[in-house]
Amino acid sequence: MKAEIISIGDEILIGQITNTNSVWMAQQLNLIGVTVAHICTVADQEEVIKSAMSLAGTRASLVLITGGLGPTKDDVTRKAFAEFFNTTLELNHVVLKDISDYYAKKDVLLSETNKRQAILPLGAEIIKNPVGTAPAMMMRKEQTLYISMPGVPYEMKSIMQEHVLPAIKKNNTLPAIFHKTVLTYGIAESTLSEIIAEWEDSLAQKNIKLAYLPQPGMVRLRLSAYGAMAAEIQSQLEQEIVQLNKLIKEYILGYETFGEEEQTPQKIVSNLLREKKQTLSIAESCTGGYLSSLFTAIPGASEIFKGSVVPYSNQMKHKILGVDESLFETVGVVSKECVEQLAANVLKRFETDYSISVSGIAGPGGATDEKPVGLVWICVANKNKVVSKKYLFGDDRQRNIIRTSFAAIDLLRQLILENQN
Amino acid sequence: MKAEIISIGDEILIGQITNTNSVWMAQQLNLIGVTVAHICTVADQEEVIKSAMSLAGTRASLVLITGGLGPTKDDVTRKAFAEFFNTTLELNHVVLKDISDYYAKKDVLLSETNKRQAILPLGAEIIKNPVGTAPAMMMRKEQTLYISMPGVPYEMKSIMQEHVLPAIKKNNTLPAIFHKTVLTYGIAESTLSEIIAEWEDSLAQKNIKLAYLPQPGMVRLRLSAYGAMAAEIQSQLEQEIVQLNKLIKEYILGYETFGEEEQTPQKIVSNLLREKKQTLSIAESCTGGYLSSLFTAIPGASEIFKGSVVPYSNQMKHKILGVDESLFETVGVVSKECVEQLAANVLKRFETDYSISVSGIAGPGGATDEKPVGLVWICVANKNKVVSKKYLFGDDRQRNIIRTSFAAIDLLRQLILENQN
Repeated sequence: MKAEIISIGDEILIGQITNTNSVWMAQQLNLIGVTVAHICTVADQEEVIKSAMSLAGTRASLVLITGGLGPTKDDVTRKAFAEFFNTTLELNHVVLKDISDYYAKKDVLLSETNKRQAILPLGAEIIKNPVGTAPAMMMRKEQTLYISMPGVPYEMKSIMQEHVLPAIKKNNTLPAIFHKTVLTYGIAESTLSEIIAEWEDSLAQKNIKLAYLPQPGMVRLRLSAYGAMAAEIQSQLEQEIVQLNKLIKEYILGYETFGEEEQTPQKIVSNLLREKKQTLSIAESCTGGYLSSLFTAIPGASEIFKGSVVPYSNQMKHKILGVDESLFETVGVVSKECVEQLAANVLKRFETDYSISVSGIAGPGGATDEKPVGLVWICVANKNKVVSKKYLFGDDRQRNIIRTSFAAIDLLRQLILENQN
Repeated sequence: MKAEIISIGDEILIGQITNTNSVWMAQQLNLIGVTVAHICTVADQEEVIKSAMSLAGTRASLVLITGGLGPTKDDVTRKAFAEFFNTTLELNHVVLKDISDYYAKKDVLLSETNKRQAILPLGAEIIKNPVGTAPAMMMRKEQTLYISMPGVPYEMKSIMQEHVLPAIKKNNTLPAIFHKTVLTYGIAESTLSEIIAEWEDSLAQKNIKLAYLPQPGMVRLRLSAYGAMAAEIQSQLEQEIVQLNKLIKEYILGYETFGEEEQTPQKIVSNLLREKKQTLSIAESCTGGYLSSLFTAIPGASEIFKGSVVPYSNQMKHKILGVDESLFETVGVVSKECVEQLAANVLKRFETDYSISVSGIAGPGGATDEKPVGLVWICVANKNKVVSKKYLFGDDRQRNIIRTSFAAIDLLRQLILENQN
């Protein structure tokens, strides 16, 4: 089954917002075995919406549309939808009642503007919006089913999960697709590609696709297998991963099975700590809270994370975390000495099993002749060992913050694994 | 001038990565007066790439393509490009030398895989990649210019900024477009729309478009004016903003002129502090570092931000920031008392002019009968005043972290402004 996704919104075309809806919808569709062949974004104009719907219908049997269903005048999807299906827009009293109830619960009076969301194409199947006011609409033309949903991400997600995805699964016989991603750290894409070239060549005849997905400091290798029998293709793909493991074992961080929980280096490290009931504290200067936020974004973070300090000024490195003031004048705060003191002191103050510290020059300011933008010292410690390492990243502040954070997480991972062996 | 953007990549279609390239490219094109009419994503397959190129050519005079130029075998854009223009792929010795030099600088030996990036369509104009190995290719068919660039974001951006955008500006007479965005906080989209309905109606006849861009807790209103004379449309649009200001003054956080620096609540607050040479410290529990990272992501953050503590466990709220331990058993850590102590103590410890503290239940765990997921206390303080406020957000951990952070920034903004009046 082939699907296409149409996003409607001038704000995407002028680049004011990133289209996160389509990435999520594509994930969910792939997961249930629907192939997404095309994703597009068009303007809030009736003619272009209708033309995109018409073109998508020639290529796909399912067309998912988001956006343009708001109560305000710049939203024209309801009108375009009605015209595309040669029907009229009429006030739907059931939907009007839903909308009134929604506002009544919030103690807000229903306005004329809000009523506009109840004026819907006659003949369309209406799907109630469980978390908002704009309902979804569903209608078929020839072989293609069109579903129009609101563009507000959590409203769209709610409608997809509760109605659209179950309905697609129920009404179609879908082929099996199995994706698994191998997370690697510390090896460049081209080097990786050389090492695994022969293995990669052998995949084609097995109907397995491989994709390289580089991220700052990391490369994800995604393997996708297609076939009729879910169990068979999964086992075939797992065998290939055993082979891959033989080639690049030391670079593999972990695995991600598509559709299951997303895997990240911080989750892998958190799980290693959780298994041993161990804890972590952080002293982060140049990453300014970002490194901590990676850990605390994970549900249940408080089991392993006791806290952190962002000692952004030199003075606070001394005052809050006891770094020797004499360092400031001698080796400076971007130094082995400084990160080692930060890591040791935060470990003690927060009474944790492990600690991380980082200090660097994220840029664009702050560089000196000896210390360029992108220079970072990272240290990880437990009560027996302190490991510090110097890094030279690039010129971009945000990339430096991200790369420093992932380098720190990987350095900690190595120390944890060393202690478990 | 109409442009279209084609992204090539299976990883986007299966939803493994978000397409951030097209949002950036759309921004840059709009800025110079090029209208982006259509954005699409297609698979790494020669036939679909050629068909997308052909269709785009019927609608636009400029087609920008990204992705599929990597050295590995899953990248087929070079081949599709050559076939579309009925030309052959040949080894380009100039490009090969660039690639060799690139690797030589990094002390890496050129591999056979890497050489593949120098095999290019004969007759295409080649644009050197200043920060990577895959060059861009440019070729014209009838009225349409096609430019294919690598999908790695910073490589694409570098080629766009150094070559593509200057060339488009030089070779075309472009109409004037002016966008300005009004940032509002603390008012719902539908209420906003009621208040400004009459003003909004009057925009159409002035050739000004209005779009509502809701974000967690915030609504951005984007006004776009089109015309022949840049100065004229800008002044017309500024006049409309004066009118809008009369209607919703108390909700306006600030303004963003499209193409200039992106405006955010944290930048507005940082600038308020910078103007008065004042400083900030933060004690953040449930936001876990995210709130600090919003401030430290801004270049020059160290001028106003002295540091923060993430006292994630109760014990650390006491030990590091001196919260009275008796609170834990009585009112608990998600309380007015706790955030007021945190804010007062972090202000003192970090010796800053202002402080923020937050404590709440981000979820999914941690709720009790009296304290549901989404309950958050926020406090802002200076040496004369302490303001604390209770909030009830939703069920989603990540949204709660984001909404808490922006609510805290807005509460601080109010306190700063109050002190400046």
